[in-house]
Order: sequence, then structure tokens, then C-alpha cells
Amino acid sequence: MKEICVKTSDSYKIYIGENILPSAGDIIKKTVSICKILIICDDNVFPLYNKALKDSLLKTGYEVREFVIKAGEQSKNFSVAEDIINYLAENNFTRTDIIVALGGGVVGDISGFCAAIYLRGIKFVQIPTTFLAAIDSSVGGKTGINLFAGKNLVGAFHQPAAVITDCKLFSTLSKQVFAQGVAEGIKYGVIKDENLFNDFVNGISNICETVYHCVDIKREIVEKDEFDHADRQLLNFGHTIGHAVEKCSGFKISHGEGVAIGMNIAAKIAYKEGLSDVDLSENIKKACLKFGLPVTCNFNSDELSKAALSDKKRTGEYINLILPIKIGNCIIKKYQKNQLKKLIESGL
Amino acid sequence: MKEICVKTSDSYKIYIGENILPSAGDIIKKTVSICKILIICDDNVFPLYNKALKDSLLKTGYEVREFVIKAGEQSKNFSVAEDIINYLAENNFTRTDIIVALGGGVVGDISGFCAAIYLRGIKFVQIPTTFLAAIDSSVGGKTGINLFAGKNLVGAFHQPAAVITDCKLFSTLSKQVFAQGVAEGIKYGVIKDENLFNDFVNGISNICETVYHCVDIKREIVEKDEFDHADRQLLNFGHTIGHAVEKCSGFKISHGEGVAIGMNIAAKIAYKEGLSDVDLSENIKKACLKFGLPVTCNFNSDELSKAALSDKKRTGEYINLILPIKIGNCIIKKYQKNQLKKLIESGL
Repeated sequence: MKEICVKTSDSYKIYIGENILPSAGDIIKKTVSICKILIICDDNVFPLYNKALKDSLLKTGYEVREFVIKAGEQSKNFSVAEDIINYLAENNFTRTDIIVALGGGVVGDISGFCAAIYLRGIKFVQIPTTFLAAIDSSVGGKTGINLFAGKNLVGAFHQPAAVITDCKLFSTLSKQVFAQGVAEGIKYGVIKDENLFNDFVNGISNICETVYHCVDIKREIVEKDEFDHADRQLLNFGHTIGHAVEKCSGFKISHGEGVAIGMNIAAKIAYKEGLSDVDLSENIKKACLKFGLPVTCNFNSDELSKAALSDKKRTGEYINLILPIKIGNCIIKKYQKNQLKKLIESGL
Repeated sequence: MKEICVKTSDSYKIYIGENILPSAGDIIKKTVSICKILIICDDNVFPLYNKALKDSLLKTGYEVREFVIKAGEQSKNFSVAEDIINYLAENNFTRTDIIVALGGGVVGDISGFCAAIYLRGIKFVQIPTTFLAAIDSSVGGKTGINLFAGKNLVGAFHQPAAVITDCKLFSTLSKQVFAQGVAEGIKYGVIKDENLFNDFVNGISNICETVYHCVDIKREIVEKDEFDHADRQLLNFGHTIGHAVEKCSGFKISHGEGVAIGMNIAAKIAYKEGLSDVDLSENIKKACLKFGLPVTCNFNSDELSKAALSDKKRTGEYINLILPIKIGNCIIKKYQKNQLKKLIESGL
């Protein structure tokens, strides 16, 4: 088992290994005294992994309750958050009790949000069950829910007390769900680490090592910019255009697929803008195709730029694009919003 | 106009004066660039003070929207918070836009909570319109909403960008509503400042000065213990038993009235426990009666101790009571929960 210590406002450790779910109780006990634990889980993950977790927690001496939500993004809303919070209150959870999120990004995000606001903040532990959640949403303390008007428009920065990543759990993921994580993994490679990037091009040799390297890159960036004012923007590589692709498809194209397409377009833009010597989208394409991720879409620059600029979080007259100079090195480049259409045009 | 600077994780200034509401725009501009502002207000305060605020903000150059909630504690819930948040999203409020809470504690608490979670945190300004909100809830960054299971069970620590306290606004408060603030004011006197206490015994000579001294005491305590782990407990003087009184009355007895009764009981306990040389409840009674606050109740020690111990936020087997040694000096004393009934018995 490997450990990564994240030094944010509340420091915490990320434990990465194979078959460590059955030791979750002992791992949690390193940072959280014996208390009452609410496991939050979705109805896909519950039959697969809840028992192993619950048994481990009970054996360690924790009192355990369970809250199961419907699987899928549509559960990440105010109403489900309110149900969870009411459950905590009705079951007399106090400031020293905790939440354990067992699941992918949806479960992690809503659980973390509830932990952030219940009694003005209780501790929570993330146990990501998808490759994507393991390398992305479980690290960095961004928690939240969606509104009708957009994704993640409500939330809080609330660092977990620990993250327990059992890479064995990814064996039950479909190829397509696993690829969602690959897209973010390739992103880490492009922005910070050529070796990691090549690991994806070659098809991943050791999943725990890959998770470790991805998480360590996110750790470094999050430590520098916990509250998302500057460096954390690097993590948006492929995302500005990727989100636009998702939106244009009416969310039929998944987030990971959108990011894959977005990275390819951004890399081509970088080349056309003279920022990279070669067209890095050729390399990125190779890595994406290895895992069945799409690299192009049928939307035009007008549709994509409009969708990108309609983002609720976007302020002012400028837009930052994350563009690769070479594999392992990206820059944040500021453009006027009205330049975006032309840029995308050049990247398609 | 006087200023108090509160040095918490996000530092901010509290402006206290007479007739400063019409200058709110200029005051806010000192810390918040021109942006879109959502004024949140209840339907009691709206007809009284919204226009003066809005005119001032517009004159300074801000874009202004308004959101009016029903007056009263029952508005401090998830559903109203969700409505406010959706309004912000639908009206394209971005990270650089802000909320201004114009009202008492309910409006301040729910507005602050919405500001804390919308886009993971936008700025907000408090303009307290009651004496109570001016000296208590508007200072210190505690925001929140109620659950069916209890008050303030959901929330966030989110410091305001500024607090603008126009003491002129208190002239429209009924004697009873004003007295709600007096109870907390007397509390500040008992825990930290004999002169302030005597000011209440004598009927308040200068309201702006009184607000200033109360706020400055809260500032000192909040700076030492922003996240409520230690010193901030001092602010609970009169509250443990006060909440119990409220609860036993089915909330027919108001918070301020409960606190007044709670302070009297706590002071008598301190005397009976040998912590104070004289029975300070005699002094506290004088200050309370001056403003028509009750000093006794009809509930017995069994009812009160049960209500006090049912508090959702209470953990472990101990309970802390804040007890006065003399006027201006209180201590935090730890008792076993099963001692509480006897203690209250001695204080009745």
C-alpha cells in the first residue's frame, strides 16, 4: 500500500493499494476515533462492495449506518442532499461522527457536500470505486451538487479526512466507465508528466502505479491552489471545449469522452497558434484510441464556442485556455471571448 | 462612523453609525468591485429599508436584483435556500457577484449560507436591521438553516466581506424585538465587560457606543476561535439553559427571553457552586427587568435538563456550563451530564 500526504488547510492521506477495502476500518482509525459512520453508496455499488466495507468498520469498532442513493448524475441534487442531512440529524449524528462515501464521483461529491454543511462540517472519508473518482474527484476537496441551471453550481471546499483507493475495485468497471478515468489520466500526463502519458499510450502496465502518479500530480496542483484561483486551472486542460462537446450532445457524450475530444482540439489549437513545434493531438489521439475514447465530434466551431461561453462560472470578457507546449508541459493562455470561435475552428 | 476590523481567515470591517444605510454603496465599494448584487430581505423589512439601500447601490454603479422572503424563522429552511440559489444561477450571478443581506438573523443566516455554497462561495455583506443581528449573528461568520430536527443544524463558516450597521434602523423595532438584542448585550457584559453591563442596567445611553462595545467583544472571541472549538463557548452563557426554556415552551418563549432566564439560572448556579461571592443573578435581573425581559420560568429542573441534553449538537458524557465569577468574568466549567438536573434545581 502506498501513501500520499496532501498538505491543504486540512491535511490528509490518500492510501492506494490492491485489496485494501477489507482494511478500511483500520485505515480510518488512524485518523478518526471510534464513532458512528454513515456509509453513502449508490444502488450499483451497494451489492458489490458495501458488505466488505461494513464488516471492516464493524470489526474495528465503529457503529455503522447506510444510506443508498439511486445511481447516476440525477441524484446529485438538493433533494437527495436534504434527505441525507435529515437522516444524519434524525439518527443523532454529532460533530465527531463521520460520513464514508463509497462510490464514484456522484456519491463522493454529494457526500462531501453533506459532510461540509451538516453541523457546519463533519469529517468524511472517500472510498472511490471508479478509476475516474480515484484520480480526480476524490482528491482536492471540491464537493457539490448540480442545479437545473448547471453542474456543480452549489458546493463547498471540504477536504476529506482520508481517501482509501482500492484499485482492485476497478475490475468490475465496464471498459467504457474505466475509459472515463483514462481521459483524466491522459490529461495529467499532458499537463505534467511525459512518462505517465506514455504509460497510457502503452495501455497501463500497473494500475496502482498509474493511480499513484495521477494523484500525486493533482496533489501538487491542489496544494499550490486549494481554492481554485490560479494553478488549479491547469486541470481544465481539455475541459473548456470538452464541456461544450458534452453540452452540444445533450450530455449523450460523456464527460470523459468530451474531455478526450477537448484535449485533441486544444492540442491542435496549440499547434496552429505556434505554441507547440509538432501537432501533439497526434500523440493524444493514440492514447485516447488505445482505450476506445473518441477524438473528434460533429459539432462546428459556432456551436462549440457558444456552448463554452454559456458556462455559468465564466466571468468577464476573457477566457483561459490550457494549451500544451509539449507532452508534460501546458500553459494557461488568456484570449478574448470573441476569439474563441476562430480558435476552435482551427482546432477541429 | 466607527469601524471594527475582524481578523479571521477572511478579514473584514464592521461599520457602525447612525444613518449610514444611504452610504451603503460607497462603503461596499471599498471592498467589492462593481458587480451584480442580490439584496435578500424579508417582507417586513422590504417596505421599510430596501429603497434606501437599492438607491445607494445603484448610485454607486452596482447592478441590483432583489429577493424577498417571508418574515420569520420558518423561512430559514432548505427550500428557501434552494429558491435563492436557483435565482442566482438563473440570473447568471458569477463568482465576482455578491449577496447583500438586509435584515435580522434569519435573513443574515440564510443569505450567508447561500453565499457560502453558491459556486463554492461568493462574497456577501450583512446589513443587520435588528439590534440582535447587529451585535450577534452578523458578526463571526456562522451561517445556516434549520432542519425539522433542530435549529442551525446545517450551515457553513463564511465570513462576510463587510458588515454595515446603521443604528438608526433600530428605531422601527418594537420594544420586545429590541429586547431580544438586549439579552445578548447583557451576556457580553457579564462575560467580558462590567462597564457594558452597567450600561444596560442604566438603560443604554448611546446605542452606537453600545453596539460598538458588544461587537468588539464578539470580535475578540471570534478571532481567537473562528471555528468554534474553544473560547467561542463563552458566548453560550445563558444559552444552554435558555435553549431548554425555549424548547419547553414550544418556542412560545423567544430566544432572547430564554437567554435572559438562562443567564439568571446560570448565575444562581455559579453562586450555589461557590464560584461567585455574591448572587450575581440579582444584578442580571436588574438589567433584564429594565428592558422587560423575563427572569424566571415555570419549568422544573427535570424538564429543563432533559430539553438541554436533547440538543443534537451535544456529544459525549460531559456538558460545559458558562458560569460567572463576577460581572465581566465567566468561566467554562465541565460537568457530567447526569449532574445537570441537580445544578438547574439549585439555580431555579
